[in-house]
Amino acid sequence: MNKSDLFRHIQQKQSYLCVGLDTDIQKIPSHLQRTSDPIFEFNKQIIDATADYCVAYKPNIAFYEAHGAKGWESLQKTIEYIPKEFFTIADAKRGDIGNTSGLYARAFFEQMNFDSITVAPYMGKDSVEPFLAFEDKWVILLALTSNTGSHDFQTLPLKSSQPLFEQVIETSQKWAGADKMMYVIGATQAEQFGRIRQLLPGHFLLVPGVGAQGGDLEEVSRIGLNKECGLLVNSSRSILYASSGEDFASQAAAEAQKLQQQMATMLAKYC
Amino acid sequence: MNKSDLFRHIQQKQSYLCVGLDTDIQKIPSHLQRTSDPIFEFNKQIIDATADYCVAYKPNIAFYEAHGAKGWESLQKTIEYIPKEFFTIADAKRGDIGNTSGLYARAFFEQMNFDSITVAPYMGKDSVEPFLAFEDKWVILLALTSNTGSHDFQTLPLKSSQPLFEQVIETSQKWAGADKMMYVIGATQAEQFGRIRQLLPGHFLLVPGVGAQGGDLEEVSRIGLNKECGLLVNSSRSILYASSGEDFASQAAAEAQKLQQQMATMLAKYC
Repeated sequence: MNKSDLFRHIQQKQSYLCVGLDTDIQKIPSHLQRTSDPIFEFNKQIIDATADYCVAYKPNIAFYEAHGAKGWESLQKTIEYIPKEFFTIADAKRGDIGNTSGLYARAFFEQMNFDSITVAPYMGKDSVEPFLAFEDKWVILLALTSNTGSHDFQTLPLKSSQPLFEQVIETSQKWAGADKMMYVIGATQAEQFGRIRQLLPGHFLLVPGVGAQGGDLEEVSRIGLNKECGLLVNSSRSILYASSGEDFASQAAAEAQKLQQQMATMLAKYC
Repeated sequence: MNKSDLFRHIQQKQSYLCVGLDTDIQKIPSHLQRTSDPIFEFNKQIIDATADYCVAYKPNIAFYEAHGAKGWESLQKTIEYIPKEFFTIADAKRGDIGNTSGLYARAFFEQMNFDSITVAPYMGKDSVEPFLAFEDKWVILLALTSNTGSHDFQTLPLKSSQPLFEQVIETSQKWAGADKMMYVIGATQAEQFGRIRQLLPGHFLLVPGVGAQGGDLEEVSRIGLNKECGLLVNSSRSILYASSGEDFASQAAAEAQKLQQQMATMLAKYC
Protein backbone atom coordinates (compact mmCIF):
# COMPACT_ATOMS: atom_id res chain seq x y z
CA MET A 1 0.00 0.00 0.00
CA ASN A 2 1.31 3.49 -0.77
CA LYS A 3 0.99 6.70 1.21
CA SER A 4 -1.85 8.21 -0.82
CA ASP A 5 -3.94 5.04 -0.53
CA LEU A 6 -3.48 5.17 3.22
CA PHE A 7 -4.40 8.86 3.44
CA ARG A 8 -7.46 8.33 1.22
CA HIS A 9 -8.66 5.59 3.55
CA ILE A 10 -8.09 7.85 6.57
CA GLN A 11 -10.17 10.63 4.96
CA GLN A 12 -12.93 8.23 4.04
CA LYS A 13 -13.15 6.72 7.53
CA GLN A 14 -12.34 9.97 9.36
CA SER A 15 -10.10 7.83 11.49
CA TYR A 16 -6.42 7.12 12.02
CA LEU A 17 -7.08 4.28 14.42
CA CYS A 18 -4.98 1.12 14.31
CA VAL A 19 -6.44 -1.83 16.19
CA GLY A 20 -3.71 -3.87 17.86
CA LEU A 21 -4.52 -7.58 17.60
CA ASP A 22 -2.62 -8.58 20.76
CA THR A 23 -4.87 -11.55 21.21
CA ASP A 24 -4.26 -13.22 24.54
CA ILE A 25 -5.79 -16.69 24.72
CA GLN A 26 -6.43 -16.26 28.45
CA LYS A 27 -8.56 -13.19 27.84
CA ILE A 28 -10.72 -14.62 25.07
CA PRO A 29 -14.35 -15.06 26.21
CA SER A 30 -15.07 -18.60 27.31
CA HIS A 31 -17.74 -19.32 24.68
CA LEU A 32 -15.02 -19.01 21.99
CA GLN A 33 -12.58 -21.32 23.74
CA ARG A 34 -14.55 -24.28 22.43
CA THR A 35 -13.96 -23.40 18.77
CA SER A 36 -11.14 -25.08 16.83
CA ASP A 37 -9.08 -21.89 16.59
CA PRO A 38 -10.17 -19.47 19.35
CA ILE A 39 -7.52 -16.85 18.47
CA PHE A 40 -8.62 -16.61 14.84
CA GLU A 41 -12.31 -16.73 15.79
CA PHE A 42 -11.79 -13.86 18.24
CA ASN A 43 -9.79 -11.83 15.68
CA LYS A 44 -12.41 -12.40 13.00
CA GLN A 45 -15.17 -11.04 15.18
CA ILE A 46 -13.01 -8.12 16.35
CA ILE A 47 -12.17 -7.25 12.73
CA ASP A 48 -15.83 -7.43 11.66
CA ALA A 49 -16.84 -5.26 14.62
CA THR A 50 -14.17 -2.56 14.25
CA ALA A 51 -13.67 -2.33 10.47
CA ASP A 52 -15.94 0.72 10.16
CA TYR A 53 -13.87 2.71 12.63
CA CYS A 54 -10.22 2.00 11.85
CA VAL A 55 -7.76 2.01 8.96
CA ALA A 56 -5.11 -0.42 10.18
CA TYR A 57 -4.61 -3.68 12.05
CA LYS A 58 -1.47 -4.59 13.96
CA PRO A 59 -1.04 -8.15 15.26
CA ASN A 60 1.78 -8.30 17.79
CA ILE A 61 3.64 -11.42 16.65
CA ALA A 62 4.60 -12.53 20.19
CA PHE A 63 0.96 -13.37 20.94
CA TYR A 64 0.99 -15.85 18.03
CA GLU A 65 4.51 -17.23 18.44
CA ALA A 66 3.62 -18.11 22.02
CA HIS A 67 1.50 -20.92 20.51
CA GLY A 68 4.14 -22.27 18.11
CA ALA A 69 3.05 -23.68 14.75
CA LYS A 70 -0.64 -23.43 15.68
CA GLY A 71 -0.26 -19.72 16.56
CA TRP A 72 1.47 -19.15 13.27
CA GLU A 73 -1.55 -20.63 11.48
CA SER A 74 -3.91 -18.35 13.42
CA LEU A 75 -1.77 -15.39 12.33
CA GLN A 76 -1.79 -16.47 8.70
CA LYS A 77 -5.58 -16.86 8.73
CA THR A 78 -5.96 -13.48 10.42
CA ILE A 79 -3.86 -11.60 7.89
CA GLU A 80 -5.74 -13.30 5.05
CA TYR A 81 -9.05 -12.30 6.60
CA ILE A 82 -8.25 -8.57 6.86
CA PRO A 83 -9.70 -6.73 3.82
CA LYS A 84 -7.14 -5.32 1.36
CA GLU A 85 -7.89 -1.64 2.03
CA PHE A 86 -6.55 -1.88 5.59
CA PHE A 87 -2.92 -1.13 6.31
CA THR A 88 -1.45 -4.16 8.09
CA ILE A 89 1.46 -4.04 10.49
CA ALA A 90 3.47 -7.05 11.66
CA ASP A 91 4.53 -5.82 15.08
CA ALA A 92 7.57 -8.06 15.20
CA LYS A 93 10.42 -5.71 16.20
CA ARG A 94 12.85 -7.77 14.14
CA GLY A 95 16.37 -6.85 12.97
CA ASP A 96 19.38 -9.03 12.22
CA ILE A 97 22.39 -9.12 9.88
CA GLY A 98 21.50 -8.55 6.23
CA ASN A 99 20.85 -12.04 4.88
CA THR A 100 18.81 -12.89 7.98
CA SER A 101 16.71 -9.72 7.89
CA GLY A 102 16.01 -10.65 4.28
CA LEU A 103 14.44 -13.90 5.47
CA TYR A 104 12.25 -12.07 7.99
CA ALA A 105 11.21 -9.72 5.18
CA ARG A 106 10.14 -12.65 3.01
CA ALA A 107 8.24 -14.24 5.90
CA PHE A 108 6.19 -11.15 6.65
CA PHE A 109 5.96 -9.47 3.22
CA GLU A 110 5.70 -12.45 0.85
CA GLN A 111 4.42 -15.39 2.80
CA MET A 112 1.98 -13.31 4.85
CA ASN A 113 1.55 -10.20 2.72
CA PHE A 114 1.77 -7.66 5.54
CA ASP A 115 2.11 -4.04 4.38
CA SER A 116 4.69 -3.23 7.02
CA ILE A 117 6.84 -4.50 9.85
CA THR A 118 8.25 -2.88 12.98
CA VAL A 119 12.06 -3.08 13.08
CA ALA A 120 14.56 -2.42 15.89
CA PRO A 121 17.39 -0.05 14.86
CA TYR A 122 20.25 -1.25 17.09
CA MET A 123 22.03 -3.28 14.38
CA GLY A 124 22.03 -0.39 11.90
CA LYS A 125 21.58 0.09 8.18
CA ASP A 126 22.29 -3.38 6.79
CA SER A 127 19.77 -4.88 9.25
CA VAL A 128 17.00 -2.56 7.98
CA GLU A 129 17.74 -2.37 4.25
CA PRO A 130 16.46 -5.84 3.27
CA PHE A 131 12.98 -4.77 4.42
CA LEU A 132 13.16 -1.68 2.20
CA ALA A 133 13.70 -3.68 -0.98
CA PHE A 134 9.99 -4.56 -1.37
CA GLU A 135 7.73 -2.28 -3.39
CA ASP A 136 4.87 -0.61 -1.48
CA LYS A 137 6.01 -2.29 1.75
CA TRP A 138 7.05 -0.28 4.78
CA VAL A 139 9.55 -0.33 7.61
CA ILE A 140 8.28 1.11 10.89
CA LEU A 141 11.45 1.82 12.85
CA LEU A 142 11.48 1.93 16.64
CA ALA A 143 12.55 5.45 17.59
CA LEU A 144 11.08 6.42 20.97
CA THR A 145 8.94 3.69 22.49
CA SER A 146 6.15 4.01 25.07
CA ASN A 147 7.65 1.88 27.87
CA THR A 148 9.70 3.07 30.86
CA GLY A 149 12.77 1.24 29.50
CA SER A 150 12.82 3.78 26.66
CA HIS A 151 14.82 6.00 29.03
CA ASP A 152 17.60 3.45 29.48
CA PHE A 153 19.17 4.03 26.07
CA GLN A 154 16.84 5.83 23.62
CA THR A 155 16.97 9.18 25.42
CA LEU A 156 20.70 9.05 26.34
CA PRO A 157 22.49 12.18 25.17
CA LEU A 158 25.19 11.61 22.57
CA LYS A 159 28.38 13.62 22.37
CA SER A 160 26.57 15.90 19.91
CA SER A 161 24.03 16.54 22.76
CA GLN A 162 21.31 14.95 20.66
CA PRO A 163 19.49 12.06 22.33
CA LEU A 164 20.08 8.67 20.70
CA PHE A 165 16.54 8.39 19.27
CA GLU A 166 17.04 11.66 17.35
CA GLN A 167 20.21 10.28 15.84
CA VAL A 168 18.31 7.12 14.89
CA ILE A 169 15.73 9.32 13.14
CA GLU A 170 18.38 11.44 11.41
CA THR A 171 20.58 8.58 10.23
CA SER A 172 17.73 6.34 9.10
CA GLN A 173 16.27 9.07 6.91
CA LYS A 174 19.22 8.50 4.61
CA TRP A 175 18.05 4.91 4.09
CA ALA A 176 14.54 5.70 2.77
CA GLY A 177 11.97 8.49 2.66
CA ALA A 178 8.48 9.13 3.98
CA ASP A 179 7.04 6.86 1.29
CA LYS A 180 8.63 3.70 2.75
CA MET A 181 9.49 4.45 6.36
CA MET A 182 7.43 5.27 9.43
CA TYR A 183 8.56 5.58 13.05
CA VAL A 184 7.25 4.24 16.35
CA ILE A 185 6.81 7.13 18.79
CA GLY A 186 5.07 6.28 22.06
CA ALA A 187 2.06 8.37 23.07
CA THR A 188 3.56 8.56 26.56
CA GLN A 189 6.38 10.72 25.11
CA ALA A 190 4.21 13.78 24.42
CA GLU A 191 6.88 16.28 25.51
CA GLN A 192 9.05 15.05 22.61
CA PHE A 193 6.35 15.05 19.94
CA GLY A 194 6.89 18.64 18.76
CA ARG A 195 10.61 18.11 18.21
CA ILE A 196 9.98 14.79 16.45
CA ARG A 197 7.46 16.41 14.10
CA GLN A 198 10.11 19.01 13.21
CA LEU A 199 12.57 16.23 12.35
CA LEU A 200 9.95 14.22 10.45
CA PRO A 201 7.47 16.71 8.97
CA GLY A 202 6.13 14.40 6.28
CA HIS A 203 6.35 10.95 7.88
CA PHE A 204 3.68 8.78 9.36
CA LEU A 205 4.23 8.00 13.04
CA LEU A 206 2.85 4.83 14.59
CA VAL A 207 1.78 5.79 18.09
CA PRO A 208 1.22 3.08 20.71
CA GLY A 209 0.48 3.84 24.33
CA VAL A 210 -2.90 5.59 24.13
CA GLY A 211 -5.34 4.04 26.62
CA ALA A 212 -3.98 1.30 28.92
CA GLN A 213 -0.49 2.85 28.91
CA GLY A 214 -1.71 6.38 29.69
CA GLY A 215 -1.02 8.44 26.54
CA ASP A 216 -3.36 11.32 25.70
CA LEU A 217 -5.03 11.20 22.25
CA GLU A 218 -5.86 14.91 22.10
CA GLU A 219 -2.33 16.03 22.92
CA VAL A 220 -0.72 13.54 20.52
CA SER A 221 -3.09 14.63 17.74
CA ARG A 222 -2.72 18.38 18.32
CA ILE A 223 1.06 18.16 18.02
CA GLY A 224 1.37 15.17 15.71
CA LEU A 225 -1.18 15.60 12.89
CA ASN A 226 0.18 16.95 9.61
CA LYS A 227 -1.49 17.77 6.30
CA GLU A 228 -1.68 14.11 5.26
CA CYS A 229 -2.67 13.04 8.77
CA GLY A 230 0.74 11.50 9.49
CA LEU A 231 -0.46 9.49 12.48
CA LEU A 232 -1.61 5.96 13.12
CA VAL A 233 -2.70 5.72 16.73
CA ASN A 234 -2.83 2.20 18.07
CA SER A 235 -5.17 0.85 20.69
CA SER A 236 -5.12 -2.81 21.70
CA ARG A 237 -6.31 -3.88 25.13
CA SER A 238 -8.99 -1.21 25.63
CA ILE A 239 -10.74 -2.36 22.43
CA LEU A 240 -10.05 -6.11 22.50
CA TYR A 241 -11.04 -6.61 26.11
CA ALA A 242 -13.72 -3.95 26.47
CA SER A 243 -15.91 -6.81 27.67
CA SER A 244 -15.00 -10.36 28.68
CA GLY A 245 -18.49 -11.65 27.93
CA GLU A 246 -20.42 -12.75 24.85
CA ASP A 247 -20.88 -9.08 23.94
CA PHE A 248 -17.10 -8.56 23.51
CA ALA A 249 -17.42 -7.68 19.82
CA SER A 250 -20.14 -5.06 20.22
CA GLN A 251 -18.27 -3.55 23.17
CA ALA A 252 -15.08 -3.50 21.09
CA ALA A 253 -17.03 -1.75 18.32
CA ALA A 254 -18.34 0.85 20.78
CA GLU A 255 -14.82 1.53 22.08
CA ALA A 256 -13.40 1.81 18.55
CA GLN A 257 -16.25 4.09 17.51
CA LYS A 258 -15.58 6.37 20.49
CA LEU A 259 -11.95 6.73 19.40
CA GLN A 260 -12.98 7.24 15.76
CA GLN A 261 -15.32 10.05 16.74
CA GLN A 262 -12.60 11.80 18.74
CA MET A 263 -10.28 11.36 15.75
CA ALA A 264 -12.82 12.88 13.34
CA THR A 265 -12.88 15.98 15.56
CA MET A 266 -9.08 16.10 15.67
CA LEU A 267 -8.81 15.77 11.88
CA ALA A 268 -11.22 18.68 11.40
CA LYS A 269 -9.27 20.78 13.89
CA TYR A 270 -5.62 20.01 13.14
CA CYS A 271 -5.22 18.29 9.76
CA MET B 1 21.63 -24.99 32.22
CA ASN B 2 23.91 -23.19 34.66
CA LYS B 3 27.39 -21.78 34.16
CA SER B 4 29.30 -24.66 35.77
CA ASP B 5 27.47 -27.24 33.64
CA LEU B 6 28.43 -25.28 30.56
CA PHE B 7 32.08 -24.96 31.61
CA ARG B 8 32.24 -28.68 32.48
CA HIS B 9 30.99 -29.53 28.99
CA ILE B 10 33.58 -27.18 27.46
CA GLN B 11 36.39 -28.87 29.40
CA GLN B 12 35.18 -32.30 28.47
CA LYS B 13 34.93 -31.51 24.75
CA GLN B 14 37.94 -29.14 24.70
CA SER B 15 35.73 -26.93 22.61
CA TYR B 16 33.76 -23.70 22.88
CA LEU B 17 32.24 -24.09 19.46
CA CYS B 18 28.61 -23.20 18.83
CA VAL B 19 27.14 -24.52 15.60
CA GLY B 20 24.71 -22.03 14.06
CA LEU B 21 21.75 -23.87 12.56
CA ASP B 22 20.99 -21.21 9.92
CA THR B 23 19.43 -23.81 7.71
CA ASP B 24 18.67 -22.39 4.28
CA ILE B 25 16.33 -24.62 2.30
CA GLN B 26 17.99 -23.53 -0.95
CA LYS B 27 21.37 -24.80 0.24
CA ILE B 28 20.23 -28.21 1.48
CA PRO B 29 21.64 -31.02 -0.69
CA SER B 30 19.18 -32.19 -3.30
CA HIS B 31 18.89 -35.78 -2.04
CA LEU B 32 17.32 -34.42 1.18
CA GLN B 33 14.80 -32.22 -0.62
CA ARG B 34 12.64 -35.28 -1.24
CA THR B 35 12.17 -36.02 2.49
CA SER B 36 9.02 -34.83 4.26
CA ASP B 37 10.89 -32.24 6.35
CA PRO B 38 14.20 -31.40 4.62
CA ILE B 39 15.14 -28.72 7.20
CA PHE B 40 14.81 -31.08 10.14
CA GLU B 41 16.47 -33.94 8.25
CA PHE B 42 19.44 -31.70 7.44
CA ASN B 43 19.68 -30.43 11.04
CA LYS B 44 19.51 -33.95 12.42
CA GLN B 45 22.43 -35.09 10.32
CA ILE B 46 24.41 -31.92 11.09
CA ILE B 47 23.82 -32.43 14.82
CA ASP B 48 24.85 -36.10 14.66
CA ALA B 49 27.97 -35.15 12.70
CA THR B 50 29.13 -32.24 14.85
CA ALA B 51 28.08 -33.26 18.38
CA ASP B 52 31.57 -34.52 19.27
CA TYR B 53 33.14 -31.15 18.48
CA CYS B 54 30.82 -28.51 19.88
CA VAL B 55 29.01 -27.53 23.09
CA ALA B 56 26.16 -25.40 21.78
CA TYR B 57 23.64 -25.13 18.94
CA LYS B 58 22.11 -21.88 17.77
CA PRO B 59 19.20 -21.95 15.32
CA ASN B 60 18.61 -18.51 13.85
CA ILE B 61 14.84 -18.22 14.07
CA ALA B 62 14.46 -16.27 10.82
CA PHE B 63 15.42 -19.35 8.82
CA TYR B 64 12.43 -21.21 10.34
CA GLU B 65 9.92 -18.35 10.39
CA ALA B 66 10.51 -17.91 6.67
CA HIS B 67 8.51 -21.15 6.26
CA GLY B 68 5.59 -20.21 8.52
CA ALA B 69 3.89 -22.92 10.58
CA LYS B 70 5.87 -25.67 8.85
CA GLY B 71 9.16 -23.97 9.69
CA TRP B 72 8.04 -23.65 13.27
CA GLU B 73 7.51 -27.41 13.39
CA SER B 74 10.99 -28.04 11.97
CA LEU B 75 12.38 -25.79 14.72
CA GLN B 76 10.45 -27.59 17.44
CA LYS B 77 11.65 -30.98 16.21
CA THR B 78 15.23 -29.68 16.00
CA ILE B 79 15.29 -28.36 19.56
CA GLU B 80 13.79 -31.62 20.82
CA TYR B 81 16.45 -33.60 18.97
CA ILE B 82 19.44 -31.76 20.48
CA PRO B 83 20.78 -33.74 23.47
CA LYS B 84 20.28 -32.11 26.88
CA GLU B 85 23.98 -31.48 27.60
CA PHE B 86 24.20 -28.95 24.77
CA PHE B 87 23.57 -25.27 25.46
CA THR B 88 20.84 -24.12 23.08
CA ILE B 89 20.43 -20.57 21.84
CA ALA B 90 17.31 -19.19 20.16
CA ASP B 91 18.91 -16.54 17.97
CA ALA B 92 15.76 -14.46 17.80
CA LYS B 93 16.92 -10.92 18.67
CA ARG B 94 13.57 -10.21 20.30
CA GLY B 95 12.60 -7.38 22.66
CA ASP B 96 9.26 -5.66 23.27
CA ILE B 97 7.33 -4.02 26.10
CA GLY B 98 7.17 -6.12 29.28
CA ASN B 99 4.01 -8.20 28.84
CA THR B 100 4.97 -8.94 25.23
CA SER B 101 8.57 -9.94 26.01
CA GLY B 102 7.03 -12.27 28.60
CA LEU B 103 5.19 -14.06 25.79
CA TYR B 104 8.36 -14.43 23.75
CA ALA B 105 10.06 -15.84 26.85
CA ARG B 106 7.33 -18.45 27.25
CA ALA B 107 7.52 -19.36 23.56
CA PHE B 108 11.26 -20.00 23.60
CA PHE B 109 11.84 -21.12 27.20
CA GLU B 110 8.72 -23.14 27.98
CA GLN B 111 7.22 -24.27 24.73
CA MET B 112 10.58 -24.98 23.12
CA ASN B 113 12.88 -25.37 26.11
CA PHE B 114 15.79 -23.33 24.76
CA ASP B 115 18.46 -22.49 27.34
CA SER B 116 18.86 -18.94 26.10
CA ILE B 117 17.65 -16.29 23.69
CA THR B 118 19.34 -13.33 22.03
CA VAL B 119 17.66 -10.03 22.92
CA ALA B 120 18.00 -6.52 21.43
CA PRO B 121 18.63 -3.84 24.08
CA TYR B 122 17.04 -0.77 22.44
CA MET B 123 13.80 -0.88 24.47
CA GLY B 124 15.63 -1.08 27.81
CA LYS B 125 15.19 -2.86 31.11
CA ASP B 126 11.50 -3.78 31.10
CA SER B 127 11.89 -5.37 27.66
CA VAL B 128 14.68 -7.65 28.93
CA GLU B 129 13.53 -8.49 32.47
CA PRO B 130 10.77 -10.96 31.55
CA PHE B 131 13.41 -13.22 30.01
CA LEU B 132 15.42 -13.11 33.27
CA ALA B 133 12.58 -14.50 35.37
CA PHE B 134 13.21 -18.12 34.32
CA GLU B 135 15.57 -20.27 36.37
CA ASP B 136 18.71 -21.51 34.60
CA LYS B 137 17.68 -19.67 31.43
CA TRP B 138 19.84 -16.99 29.88
CA VAL B 139 19.57 -13.67 28.10
CA ILE B 140 22.24 -13.04 25.48
CA LEU B 141 22.11 -9.30 24.94
CA LEU B 142 23.25 -7.69 21.69
CA ALA B 143 26.13 -5.39 22.59
CA LEU B 144 28.52 -5.04 19.63
CA THR B 145 27.44 -7.04 16.62
CA SER B 146 29.56 -8.33 13.74
CA ASN B 147 27.89 -6.47 10.84
CA THR B 148 28.91 -3.15 9.27
CA GLY B 149 25.70 -1.52 10.58
CA SER B 150 27.09 -1.95 14.11
CA HIS B 151 28.88 1.36 13.49
CA ASP B 152 25.65 3.27 12.83
CA PHE B 153 24.57 3.41 16.48
CA GLN B 154 26.41 0.89 18.69
CA THR B 155 29.76 2.67 18.52
CA LEU B 156 28.39 6.25 18.70
CA PRO B 157 30.06 8.20 21.48
CA LEU B 158 27.74 9.33 24.25
CA LYS B 159 28.11 12.59 26.13
CA SER B 160 30.16 10.65 28.69
CA SER B 161 32.54 9.78 25.79
CA GLN B 162 31.69 6.10 26.22
CA PRO B 163 30.38 4.40 23.09
CA LEU B 164 26.73 3.30 23.27
CA PHE B 165 27.54 -0.43 23.43
CA GLU B 166 29.64 0.13 26.56
CA GLN B 167 26.74 1.90 28.20
CA VAL B 168 24.50 -1.03 27.21
CA ILE B 169 26.98 -3.37 28.92
CA GLU B 170 27.27 -1.17 32.02
CA THR B 171 23.54 -0.54 32.49
CA SER B 172 22.45 -4.11 31.78
CA GLN B 173 24.83 -5.50 34.40
CA LYS B 174 22.48 -4.02 36.99
CA TRP B 175 19.69 -6.26 35.65
CA ALA B 176 21.45 -9.62 36.15
CA GLY B 177 24.90 -11.12 36.67
CA ALA B 178 27.24 -13.46 34.81
CA ASP B 179 25.10 -16.44 35.84
CA LYS B 180 22.10 -15.33 33.72
CA MET B 181 23.40 -12.92 31.11
CA MET B 182 25.79 -13.22 28.20
CA TYR B 183 26.62 -10.69 25.50
CA VAL B 184 26.90 -10.85 21.71
CA ILE B 185 30.27 -9.45 20.64
CA GLY B 186 31.15 -9.86 16.97
CA ALA B 187 34.46 -11.50 16.11
CA THR B 188 35.00 -8.73 13.57
CA GLN B 189 35.33 -6.26 16.48
CA ALA B 190 38.69 -7.59 17.74
CA GLU B 191 40.07 -4.12 18.55
CA GLN B 192 37.31 -3.75 21.17
CA PHE B 193 37.68 -7.19 22.75
CA GLY B 194 40.24 -6.20 25.38
CA ARG B 195 38.12 -3.33 26.65
CA ILE B 196 35.01 -5.52 26.68
CA ARG B 197 36.78 -8.23 28.68
CA GLN B 198 37.73 -5.55 31.24
CA LEU B 199 34.07 -4.51 31.54
CA LEU B 200 32.86 -8.14 31.67
CA PRO B 201 35.63 -10.20 33.28
CA GLY B 202 33.40 -13.10 34.33
CA HIS B 203 30.76 -13.21 31.57
CA PHE B 204 30.39 -15.54 28.65
CA LEU B 205 30.49 -13.78 25.29
CA LEU B 206 28.73 -15.23 22.27
CA VAL B 207 30.96 -14.47 19.30
CA PRO B 208 29.57 -14.66 15.78
CA GLY B 209 31.52 -13.62 12.74
CA VAL B 210 34.36 -16.15 12.67
CA GLY B 211 34.69 -17.73 9.22
CA ALA B 212 32.42 -16.36 6.48
CA GLN B 213 32.35 -12.88 8.08
CA GLY B 214 36.13 -12.66 8.50
CA GLY B 215 36.75 -12.74 12.27
CA ASP B 216 40.00 -14.35 13.52
CA LEU B 217 39.60 -17.22 16.01
CA GLU B 218 43.11 -16.97 17.42
CA GLU B 219 42.88 -13.24 18.14
CA VAL B 220 39.41 -13.52 19.66
CA SER B 221 40.55 -16.41 21.86
CA ARG B 222 43.81 -14.80 22.99
CA ILE B 223 41.99 -11.69 24.21
CA GLY B 224 38.63 -13.20 25.10
CA LEU B 225 39.28 -16.44 27.01
CA ASN B 226 38.96 -16.21 30.80
CA LYS B 227 39.43 -18.80 33.53
CA GLU B 228 36.05 -20.38 32.91
CA CYS B 229 36.51 -20.11 29.14
CA GLY B 230 33.96 -17.29 28.83
CA LEU B 231 33.55 -17.68 25.07
CA LEU B 232 31.11 -19.40 22.77
CA VAL B 233 32.34 -18.94 19.23
CA ASN B 234 29.70 -19.50 16.60
CA SER B 235 30.20 -20.84 13.12
CA SER B 236 27.28 -21.40 10.77
CA ARG B 237 27.80 -21.35 7.03
CA SER B 238 31.35 -22.72 6.94
CA ILE B 239 30.18 -25.87 8.76
CA LEU B 240 26.65 -26.29 7.35
CA TYR B 241 27.61 -25.81 3.74
CA ALA B 242 31.13 -27.28 3.77
CA SER B 243 29.85 -29.48 0.96
CA SER B 244 26.69 -29.28 -1.12
CA GLY B 245 26.76 -32.98 -1.96
CA GLU B 246 25.76 -36.20 -0.25
CA ASP B 247 28.90 -35.95 1.91
CA PHE B 248 27.67 -32.70 3.54
CA ALA B 249 27.56 -34.25 7.02
CA SER B 250 31.06 -35.71 6.99
CA GLN B 251 32.43 -32.46 5.55
CA ALA B 252 30.59 -30.52 8.28
CA ALA B 253 32.13 -32.85 10.86
CA ALA B 254 35.60 -32.26 9.41
CA GLU B 255 35.12 -28.49 9.53
CA ALA B 256 33.80 -28.60 13.12
CA GLN B 257 36.66 -30.87 14.16
CA LYS B 258 39.20 -28.46 12.67
CA LEU B 259 37.74 -25.63 14.78
CA GLN B 260 37.58 -27.88 17.87
CA GLN B 261 41.27 -28.73 17.51
CA GLN B 262 42.22 -25.07 17.23
CA MET B 263 40.08 -24.39 20.30
CA ALA B 264 41.76 -27.15 22.32
CA THR B 265 45.11 -25.44 21.62
CA MET B 266 43.69 -22.05 22.63
CA LEU B 267 42.23 -23.44 25.86
CA ALA B 268 45.61 -24.93 26.80
CA LYS B 269 47.35 -21.64 26.03
CA TYR B 270 44.98 -18.98 27.38
CA CYS B 271 42.40 -20.48 29.73
